[in-house]
Amino acid sequence: MIAVHLERGRVELREIPRPSRGRGFALIRLLTGGICNTDLELQRGYYGYTGTPGHEFVGEVLESDTAELIGRRVVGEINCACHACAWCGRGLERHCPHRTVLGIVNQPGAFSEFFVLPDRNLRAVPDSMTNHTAVFTEPVAAACEILDQVAIPPGGIVAVLGDGKLGLLISQVLQASGCRVHQFGRHESKLRIARDRGVTTEIAGETLPRAEYRWVVDATGSASGLGMAIGMAEPRGTVILKSTVHGEVPVDTAPAIVNEITLIGSRCGRFEPALELLRSGAIDVESMISDRMPLQGAPEAFRRAGESGVLKVLIGA
Amino acid sequence: MIAVHLERGRVELREIPRPSRGRGFALIRLLTGGICNTDLELQRGYYGYTGTPGHEFVGEVLESDTAELIGRRVVGEINCACHACAWCGRGLERHCPHRTVLGIVNQPGAFSEFFVLPDRNLRAVPDSMTNHTAVFTEPVAAACEILDQVAIPPGGIVAVLGDGKLGLLISQVLQASGCRVHQFGRHESKLRIARDRGVTTEIAGETLPRAEYRWVVDATGSASGLGMAIGMAEPRGTVILKSTVHGEVPVDTAPAIVNEITLIGSRCGRFEPALELLRSGAIDVESMISDRMPLQGAPEAFRRAGESGVLKVLIGA
Repeated sequence: MIAVHLERGRVELREIPRPSRGRGFALIRLLTGGICNTDLELQRGYYGYTGTPGHEFVGEVLESDTAELIGRRVVGEINCACHACAWCGRGLERHCPHRTVLGIVNQPGAFSEFFVLPDRNLRAVPDSMTNHTAVFTEPVAAACEILDQVAIPPGGIVAVLGDGKLGLLISQVLQASGCRVHQFGRHESKLRIARDRGVTTEIAGETLPRAEYRWVVDATGSASGLGMAIGMAEPRGTVILKSTVHGEVPVDTAPAIVNEITLIGSRCGRFEPALELLRSGAIDVESMISDRMPLQGAPEAFRRAGESGVLKVLIGA
Repeated sequence: MIAVHLERGRVELREIPRPSRGRGFALIRLLTGGICNTDLELQRGYYGYTGTPGHEFVGEVLESDTAELIGRRVVGEINCACHACAWCGRGLERHCPHRTVLGIVNQPGAFSEFFVLPDRNLRAVPDSMTNHTAVFTEPVAAACEILDQVAIPPGGIVAVLGDGKLGLLISQVLQASGCRVHQFGRHESKLRIARDRGVTTEIAGETLPRAEYRWVVDATGSASGLGMAIGMAEPRGTVILKSTVHGEVPVDTAPAIVNEITLIGSRCGRFEPALELLRSGAIDVESMISDRMPLQGAPEAFRRAGESGVLKVLIGA
């Protein structure tokens, strides 16, 4: 079968054997995959990953121990937990220290004709939902994670910094969940997507509001984002960290201490609320699709995904 | 009267007029003052403060609108709030945006023969408590603040990084409050003070425990402390930031995001629990006194307080 292979910054296609599934695993045929910033970071050499990337996907189950999954369209939780340790026992499978992670840590990813994932990680996609919408389930779940971590009352005003892929999903998810979102970005064309769903948007200028927001999300993906977010949070406010920036980031922690700010790291989330938001049409993901290419075009798709101004690039049939 | 004067890194004595108290203010005679790391930071030019420093004190009230305060020994909350704004209305006077701060922000400090502070900031010191104990009320309150911010169940194991003045108060306060504290420091002679109060201590070597603690307090006062604390916190754990480090600190935020760590800035605290801990004898502060000098010896006291291995230096009669 054809699989994307990532090694030392190169993205190429390889012909490799179809994977055999272990007990409890399903064999899945890729329908649509999405390229995430994490994939681009893997390409830059972060995490030292070599192999098949890809963790945003919709697929069709070909083989499984679970009869009702066979033939179903599915999305999948990317963390493969051991389900035996104390973390799993506490319901924190996404933090299982023994976990593999699809296309990121010791688990071949979804950017190949076929791949495997545990049955228990899979969620059926409603028939009414297109592949191009369902493929956003994983990043929408990451946006939803904020609501599982921070109690924001209805009408709470939240600042979102950044108008990239994740920033646009976060602003829409929070707005759809009853928050009033003020999103700050640099691209009018991107901000428009969120504004069409009720988000108040603003082109971020040289100066940002100071100590004004009780909740601030840093989704800038840049080293300067955290400091900006801390500066915008009011005393005793909360900053949610959604920007994975590699290496050391220079941060002035003094304002966080003087103003007793809470900073919360936020990563993957539950799929159920994400599927429900996508099913209901509450958030617009299709406007975020910049390009679609076949699996064979993955090297070009990766190049395209890294271009300035480009949002989501999909690969697959 | 004699007052310490701090300007451009110089600490000197000056003869200045005795302050006159405004309405609602008390005139206080300094009995004992304590030099805090913040005072040394002011000396290094941070905050751009010029004037009389000093915010850790015990004093005697000479004049006040509140009859029962006159003649009493008092300690005092250092944040002078407006008591009119929305923050004060929410009970967050210590975050009042209009506040002055004794000896730090627009309010002449306590290192002078006489100084003023609002009556409502003052707390009477129990007769049984020595000046040398009571002068620790303010920093003990800062340690107690952690317990107001983070719910740690009885028996919860907390790592405290750093064995300086604040680290030793934090470890003792948390231990006295029912936590089991593991303190990591570099000085056996300092750690012994906490160990005598039941704290488990360890000389911090090249390697520290990884992802082992649900709660970690960074009281190192060093730029590297935050990264160490994040590394020691388990997934979904909490790091309390007690180190004010000036300028930008290089931090690898990726582990905080991947492990969904919560970081909480922590500053000043309520005086009531601090006075009660000191009154009960639950924590040992007198062993932390490295030196005592008269007010006239303040320049030398500041020099001494900045020496390696020195803990609290007291000034005053």
